[in-house]
Amino acid sequence: MNMQERLDLADRAAIAMLSADTETKDAALARISASLESNRASIFEANQKDIEVARAAGLAAPLLKRLAFNEHKLTEVRSGIADLLAMPDPVGRVLEARLLDEGLELRRISCPIGLIAMIFESRPDALVQMASLAVKSGNAIVLKGGSEARASNAALAKVIAEAGEAAGLPCHWLTLLETREEIGELLKFDQYIDLVIPRGSKEFVARIKATSRIPVLGHSDGVCHVYVHEDADPTMATAIVLDSKTQYPATCNAAEVLLVNTKFAETGLVPLLRTLRSAGVVLDVCPRTAAILDSARAKDSAWAEQGARGAKNAEAAAREDTSVISYTMKTDDNWSVEYLDLRIAVKIVDSLDEAIAHINRYGSGHTDSIVCKSREAARRFLKEVDSSSVYHNASTRFADGYRYGLGAEVGIATGKLHARGPMGLQGLLTYKWLLEGRGQVVDDYASGKKHFIHRDLPLNDSSAGTF
Amino acid sequence: MNMQERLDLADRAAIAMLSADTETKDAALARISASLESNRASIFEANQKDIEVARAAGLAAPLLKRLAFNEHKLTEVRSGIADLLAMPDPVGRVLEARLLDEGLELRRISCPIGLIAMIFESRPDALVQMASLAVKSGNAIVLKGGSEARASNAALAKVIAEAGEAAGLPCHWLTLLETREEIGELLKFDQYIDLVIPRGSKEFVARIKATSRIPVLGHSDGVCHVYVHEDADPTMATAIVLDSKTQYPATCNAAEVLLVNTKFAETGLVPLLRTLRSAGVVLDVCPRTAAILDSARAKDSAWAEQGARGAKNAEAAAREDTSVISYTMKTDDNWSVEYLDLRIAVKIVDSLDEAIAHINRYGSGHTDSIVCKSREAARRFLKEVDSSSVYHNASTRFADGYRYGLGAEVGIATGKLHARGPMGLQGLLTYKWLLEGRGQVVDDYASGKKHFIHRDLPLNDSSAGTF
Repeated sequence: MNMQERLDLADRAAIAMLSADTETKDAALARISASLESNRASIFEANQKDIEVARAAGLAAPLLKRLAFNEHKLTEVRSGIADLLAMPDPVGRVLEARLLDEGLELRRISCPIGLIAMIFESRPDALVQMASLAVKSGNAIVLKGGSEARASNAALAKVIAEAGEAAGLPCHWLTLLETREEIGELLKFDQYIDLVIPRGSKEFVARIKATSRIPVLGHSDGVCHVYVHEDADPTMATAIVLDSKTQYPATCNAAEVLLVNTKFAETGLVPLLRTLRSAGVVLDVCPRTAAILDSARAKDSAWAEQGARGAKNAEAAAREDTSVISYTMKTDDNWSVEYLDLRIAVKIVDSLDEAIAHINRYGSGHTDSIVCKSREAARRFLKEVDSSSVYHNASTRFADGYRYGLGAEVGIATGKLHARGPMGLQGLLTYKWLLEGRGQVVDDYASGKKHFIHRDLPLNDSSAGTF
Repeated sequence: MNMQERLDLADRAAIAMLSADTETKDAALARISASLESNRASIFEANQKDIEVARAAGLAAPLLKRLAFNEHKLTEVRSGIADLLAMPDPVGRVLEARLLDEGLELRRISCPIGLIAMIFESRPDALVQMASLAVKSGNAIVLKGGSEARASNAALAKVIAEAGEAAGLPCHWLTLLETREEIGELLKFDQYIDLVIPRGSKEFVARIKATSRIPVLGHSDGVCHVYVHEDADPTMATAIVLDSKTQYPATCNAAEVLLVNTKFAETGLVPLLRTLRSAGVVLDVCPRTAAILDSARAKDSAWAEQGARGAKNAEAAAREDTSVISYTMKTDDNWSVEYLDLRIAVKIVDSLDEAIAHINRYGSGHTDSIVCKSREAARRFLKEVDSSSVYHNASTRFADGYRYGLGAEVGIATGKLHARGPMGLQGLLTYKWLLEGRGQVVDDYASGKKHFIHRDLPLNDSSAGTF
């Protein structure tokens, strides 16, 4: 079968998935979980092959670790499926209901998007997670995983696809692509694929966005900021900046730029940056920051000299001496660098306005946080910063589907349409309008014979999942 | 200024619009309305120039009518602005709220999308409508209207932009483009424009979709169906089909295809199609429909002959004779034609399944309706037809923002993401996540020192518009 034939079958499966009811979908999830357990031996074996090939090819240790699908990962993905099983059906929820006229009821109902292509890195557990999310949300999927995990993906996809079908999902609800060339081909078929969700490097995501007409949901850049306002509590500011930068520097929600209000900087900048340096963070600083650090160093030296003269200050002098804050001067105006490392850009700003303008100009619209006491400053920051997540007195690292309590994380979207920020199952859903009448025709309303009522109907939570 | 410079200013205005509060936006709408009234003379004069040029160029009468901006249109657009003024602010509504932990509150808030480009036909009133929608939703806009309305658009845009600024909206909140070439240039700047909303022919919308990386919200095709199920009430079926096809054939929500269940067709097809023919509708029919019509015609002739013999049947014979149903046989398999005229394709189907499959295959995902008594058939149709609006016992012509009670109609979206079907102001909005804490850091949760609560907070309707 060529790509078009395969996608045509997948597209038909997407239509058939529209009628999969809650019981069928949950039965499929349960059966997938059981089937992964009973086929563990062959899955582990396939994964072992991938790992041997990758090791022979000299794959780096962290990548080998992500490639592994072992006892631990199996328990993890099965626990993820159990979580999804415990969630209410997100499909068929009544989002809006209105009586247009007596006997003419309009409802807006959540429903699957259709056929979703998910492209991901060499992590076999991601395949299980994405397939389960697709089942719960009622979407058919086309999956393409990293080529290093080819044998693992093939084994997992076979087990999952068959278990789903055995539980009543339509044939071809899951399609696995196996070669990199197929991605390029896939992306041409916007008549079949409703949405592409790519995971991977920002270059990879950007390339997909640039080469396809299919809507892409994903994030390319995470240039997150912490702005320390003039009235910030120094201890809180330090804790938030430290966590935002160092808790997991390789992720998209780690802070890359620290903006410090000039009034706070007078006394607060040096201790703040000293803490960052102690945590091994490299500082790329603006000239004003450099000047403050230089002047602090001069003072430290003076103190150190004094200390050397007086014996009782020797200890203090030694401490100060090791705490000299080294930095790199930022010579360009490129404030949009995503380090993804223990490195941060530091800039002094004169006002809240300047901080907001800087973030809106150089940020990537991901996650930005202000540290301040003033309610008014917080309110303005929250309102005027044009990012998907905007925080007051909290670490940027909270930007995550699990932390947000979304139940399941599908990804983080940095686009402004459809889904924005951390997204749960909602990112895989759309809605449709249902109108139920008794034979009403528009001409009666156009002629003035009848009139619309337009009365909103209460949303009954118990109606969820009934459609 | 070149396009990039103009869009850079518009982009800054979009950021500034984020902080426009309810009072400012409503003051701007009121001032725009007053200013349109006080500048009526110069606006009418500009419109008169456009009309004279268009008339000299031989523009067709319906287009001339749409081009007119007169007393009546002025009253209409001012009444539209008054409606918008009466609506609550759609920005700053709390859509979701969750306590992540004590003192750590997450809220999802509606907010403007940013900079929206609206491209529309030669209807000056559309410019006023779009500009007002932008103000209410807090978006900056770039407008381009049809070239025939150039003078009218320039006059209206000047009055509206100045009135908005005078009321406190940022400079450049409204940018008017004046030449067709500028559209092509505009569509290249996906770094500035967040969304394009084109109105016009489907070829025009399709061309914009094909040439730009900017998300496009609009509809290209309206191939709507009415399916008459076996148990349909014949009178209701006839009324719905007639209204769906003839109430306003040139619109996208008019029916283009009639599917008739074979059991209903046995007795119901002939009277149904006779009514359509009487209303002047041309029929493009499938061979099975043709066979039924041919056999009815033969019967009619037989009756007519009988009638001619018996004097008391003469009247009936005459009536039957004039009601011979002419048709065109559909020789191809192209069931996706959008006639936008008094013409309809007719096909006999054997089952509900065949009807649903036909619609999902050949339809455009706009609006489709089933006429039936069976609750179960209706339920399956509503669930399994993959269209933005799906109806039971109602005319397809109801698919419209005003009829849906959305307050204002921005357009109808046939895509599946962001907005689907008739869209009101919601189509011009997105959301952002706000997190307010007391200095919380992720490390405390990652280390197990603290635990998430994830308790949903009740949505207080009175919080609407406070952000």
